[in-house]
Amino acid sequence: MNNTFPKGLRSKNMRRRSNTPLAVKKPHDTIPPLGDDAIRIIPLGGVEEIGRNMMVVEYKEDIIVLDAGIKFTDHETPGVDYILPNIKYLEDRKERIRAIVITHGHLDHIGSIPYIIDRLGNPPIYTREFGALLIQKRQVEFPHLAPLNIKIVGADDKSIPLTPNLKVRFFGVTHSIPDSTGVMIETPYGDIVNTGDVRIENENGVPDEKEIEHYKMFKDRNILLLCVDSTNIQQPGFSLSETYILKNIDAYVSSAPGRIILATFATQVERVIEFIKMAQHYSRKVIIEGRSMKTNVEIIKHLNLVDTSHIIPIEDMTKYPPNKIMIITTGAQGEEFAALMRMSNKTHKFIRLERSDTIVLSSSTIPGNEKAIEKLKDNLYRQDSRIITHIDSDVHTSGHGKRGELEWLHQQIPYKYFMPIHANHFRLKMHAELAEKLGCLRENIIVPDNGSIIEIQEKGTKFVKLAVEAPSEDMVVEGLSIGDISDVVIRDRKMLAEDGIFVVIVLVDTRSGRLRKSPDIIARGFVYLRESQELLSEARHIIEDISRFLFQRTAKTPIVIPVILGA
Amino acid sequence: MNNTFPKGLRSKNMRRRSNTPLAVKKPHDTIPPLGDDAIRIIPLGGVEEIGRNMMVVEYKEDIIVLDAGIKFTDHETPGVDYILPNIKYLEDRKERIRAIVITHGHLDHIGSIPYIIDRLGNPPIYTREFGALLIQKRQVEFPHLAPLNIKIVGADDKSIPLTPNLKVRFFGVTHSIPDSTGVMIETPYGDIVNTGDVRIENENGVPDEKEIEHYKMFKDRNILLLCVDSTNIQQPGFSLSETYILKNIDAYVSSAPGRIILATFATQVERVIEFIKMAQHYSRKVIIEGRSMKTNVEIIKHLNLVDTSHIIPIEDMTKYPPNKIMIITTGAQGEEFAALMRMSNKTHKFIRLERSDTIVLSSSTIPGNEKAIEKLKDNLYRQDSRIITHIDSDVHTSGHGKRGELEWLHQQIPYKYFMPIHANHFRLKMHAELAEKLGCLRENIIVPDNGSIIEIQEKGTKFVKLAVEAPSEDMVVEGLSIGDISDVVIRDRKMLAEDGIFVVIVLVDTRSGRLRKSPDIIARGFVYLRESQELLSEARHIIEDISRFLFQRTAKTPIVIPVILGA
Repeated sequence: MNNTFPKGLRSKNMRRRSNTPLAVKKPHDTIPPLGDDAIRIIPLGGVEEIGRNMMVVEYKEDIIVLDAGIKFTDHETPGVDYILPNIKYLEDRKERIRAIVITHGHLDHIGSIPYIIDRLGNPPIYTREFGALLIQKRQVEFPHLAPLNIKIVGADDKSIPLTPNLKVRFFGVTHSIPDSTGVMIETPYGDIVNTGDVRIENENGVPDEKEIEHYKMFKDRNILLLCVDSTNIQQPGFSLSETYILKNIDAYVSSAPGRIILATFATQVERVIEFIKMAQHYSRKVIIEGRSMKTNVEIIKHLNLVDTSHIIPIEDMTKYPPNKIMIITTGAQGEEFAALMRMSNKTHKFIRLERSDTIVLSSSTIPGNEKAIEKLKDNLYRQDSRIITHIDSDVHTSGHGKRGELEWLHQQIPYKYFMPIHANHFRLKMHAELAEKLGCLRENIIVPDNGSIIEIQEKGTKFVKLAVEAPSEDMVVEGLSIGDISDVVIRDRKMLAEDGIFVVIVLVDTRSGRLRKSPDIIARGFVYLRESQELLSEARHIIEDISRFLFQRTAKTPIVIPVILGA
Repeated sequence: MNNTFPKGLRSKNMRRRSNTPLAVKKPHDTIPPLGDDAIRIIPLGGVEEIGRNMMVVEYKEDIIVLDAGIKFTDHETPGVDYILPNIKYLEDRKERIRAIVITHGHLDHIGSIPYIIDRLGNPPIYTREFGALLIQKRQVEFPHLAPLNIKIVGADDKSIPLTPNLKVRFFGVTHSIPDSTGVMIETPYGDIVNTGDVRIENENGVPDEKEIEHYKMFKDRNILLLCVDSTNIQQPGFSLSETYILKNIDAYVSSAPGRIILATFATQVERVIEFIKMAQHYSRKVIIEGRSMKTNVEIIKHLNLVDTSHIIPIEDMTKYPPNKIMIITTGAQGEEFAALMRMSNKTHKFIRLERSDTIVLSSSTIPGNEKAIEKLKDNLYRQDSRIITHIDSDVHTSGHGKRGELEWLHQQIPYKYFMPIHANHFRLKMHAELAEKLGCLRENIIVPDNGSIIEIQEKGTKFVKLAVEAPSEDMVVEGLSIGDISDVVIRDRKMLAEDGIFVVIVLVDTRSGRLRKSPDIIARGFVYLRESQELLSEARHIIEDISRFLFQRTAKTPIVIPVILGA
């Protein structure tokens, strides 16, 4: 049996391959050693996207890693589950890693841990308690891994010495999940400050007294480098206060004639806590729907952050009148199998939407989810329930500060060098422009890419980006494997999705060179074969240039795999 | 040679198939004949989506079709080019079709014509001149079709009698392309009014005098049914006036130190005309970039809508100083190969972006394009040109009226029955709620689906939706074929995109039943084979349950096509 490609087809396939260059690898085998009086900072993720945050801080023989997040994938990378920061730089230096420091428990800050922790030599993880519980909860799904070495950091901790030269200090910030922090790394030349995800609680653009007090801690410090979340730099002004939106939601909860269904992100843990309090205030029993919501509420319970005695299992829902029920659910992003979607399309096991239900969509649209959310709303509006969205009232605010808040932050923290983080390039650039407008010298600002090697050299007096970069190609999680994904595989998947596959199997008599019988054809995702018998029978007669034939007939070019069997 | 499926695999494939039900077909073979004193209205597209608008109006033996649009596809239907309204109802009654009436020349109103016109028996097409030119321009790409029978309708035409019982009257509306109209079909029982796409030119929410004057024509009419564009019902208030946003753009054009690059939708023809005037005012030469933009500018030239003597070919650009150049381009949606994207990633043949360039993104984000636009902006911000977006200044307004404008429209047009159109379900429902709030009786409002058969019965006194529906399954254009697409094919394509394909070819000795040699394996889009030799050599030894094996090793389930060859 020979397995050969006819000449014409081979050259066509070769051409297709060579037309699309593989991703250009950045040079990284020539990274110079770190100078004795220099601090190296490398954002390995989170500065060309929103997600997979990770930043390396290196001084002399010590490395501290800030955050270890994942990014979710989309139809641009079909079949991929998650995208991780590229940790090659760290793997090559893992004996120097002293700690992974976590700013808060969201997946874009902790999600990589189970995939990379063993590759980094299982360093200790420093985190506040809520983050610790989320990390441990997740780790349960990876039983083959060694136990994590988690160091829980208290709320009022002073600086923690991690090495003779480096201390880390956590400072609380307002975000959307309990125990959110910024991190300050104290070096001999000054502090490296990373705010983590941050917003400023405020009333109509005036920061709360508590926020003002809190940020006074920076007044007299020697801050060498400031790194700030850039997610919402595009939005002018201050974000709505959480207090304000909770007041709006409270009005719906108090007046809902039947069940109140509150849909939000499971990650909005602080809001969920307030919902649970609100239910108690109005004597409503609470039902928690959605896997991630249940996980987070279990942690809320465990930490006793709110009285949860009125949370009931969904099976007990019908024991109470509808106006004594609050359902807190995920799925406001239109996720196909999430609880709210199942309610909307009548496939939920326990909940059928009724006219007397009030549904509050307390969330914003994550880019990429627009169509799914439209579909969800179409389904919901077919049910005749009352639906409350941002059009009716302000029922959501982001956990990330808008431009006004960022401006205020810059004014509270005196710093020498600035590096915007946590967003894609154009947002970082906008944030850099803001810093310049606020008085930072242009040469003291660096807009990084993933893998950029940035150094504060000569005892804190020089701020440079090296010409070489650390490896930054996507590391992906796909099924059971972790690694870089070949462009070829992704390209093939996209082609398969567009045009399908068409396999011709030909049995050739090796002596005569003639076909032993009519070719067999197998196709998937191409055309509906049962309705295309004529096409198939013609195709069987044309095997010399099957690809050209298919294109002429359909203007589509499925991957053609000729299998010429000589027997 | 036998081509059989091993038992285990067959049953698995069968299970997968039967788990996902095929789209439920709505009943339509029992559509009752139309009563003598009834008018039938069927929206065949555009009421469960934004796009592919088409509405049937039928009375006695006559059918008039309003608009014939297409909808663009997305990653939910890989491989599909366009989606058309289902025209089965019309094909079955094509001898009664008296006219296709076009409200304006955008593709969501004219795009279906070349795909369906012959199936409908080539009825005459009534349209204003700009639409006619766009229709004809497009028809050139379909040389096999019979010439179109286009009837150009003047601006001030009175009612045009199409049949003894039905007249059609065009009325100008403000949208974003010249010759935009609404359509009034005069029946013995009153008028059916379809506004087409419409906005109201206004200043800070006060409609222009011209608009107020124009809509007075409806004051004394007997309007039976009103159908209004619902695209922007979610947006409160009035849209920004085009005059205002042009003034803002003018400020950038007048002060740009180098080239000014204006990126907008080619469909914003009226804005493009104003850009060309603006260039003349500031003595800038104009370069048109992007295929659809060039097409529309050719029609602008042909109709002499503006002096185009200062439009120059791009090859002549360097003959003028940069501050004497205006580039009008498509691509603000981040389309992969559009001119602006090519400028942003340095692959444009003639244009390299420079620091002195000013780029105005005069467009909004079409849902689904968010990621592509983010990518475009990332690329643009790497070029150091000045970029103006809606954050800097109001540089775009929509061609579709917001809630305030719709409210005003309802107040200008006295009507009996109301049917919201041109959007997906939840927007139609919101529009219905608005109509009710403004005084329309609930029972006089019908929110339709594609294929809903709505009748005004008993000489205009009864407004009902029939229980039966016209066929409304998607009709798709894919390569050279037009028709319904099998769910199986789409499902296979999505599976191929996620997990790839894995083909095992086994040559079996039919006498001994043993393999003649080790199986051959062909895979695409699965894993990168060159780096997975071990996986392959193991796989060769396990052909009994290859599917289970692959899942265990990769947690992925590629389509497995076993080809057992008996020789």
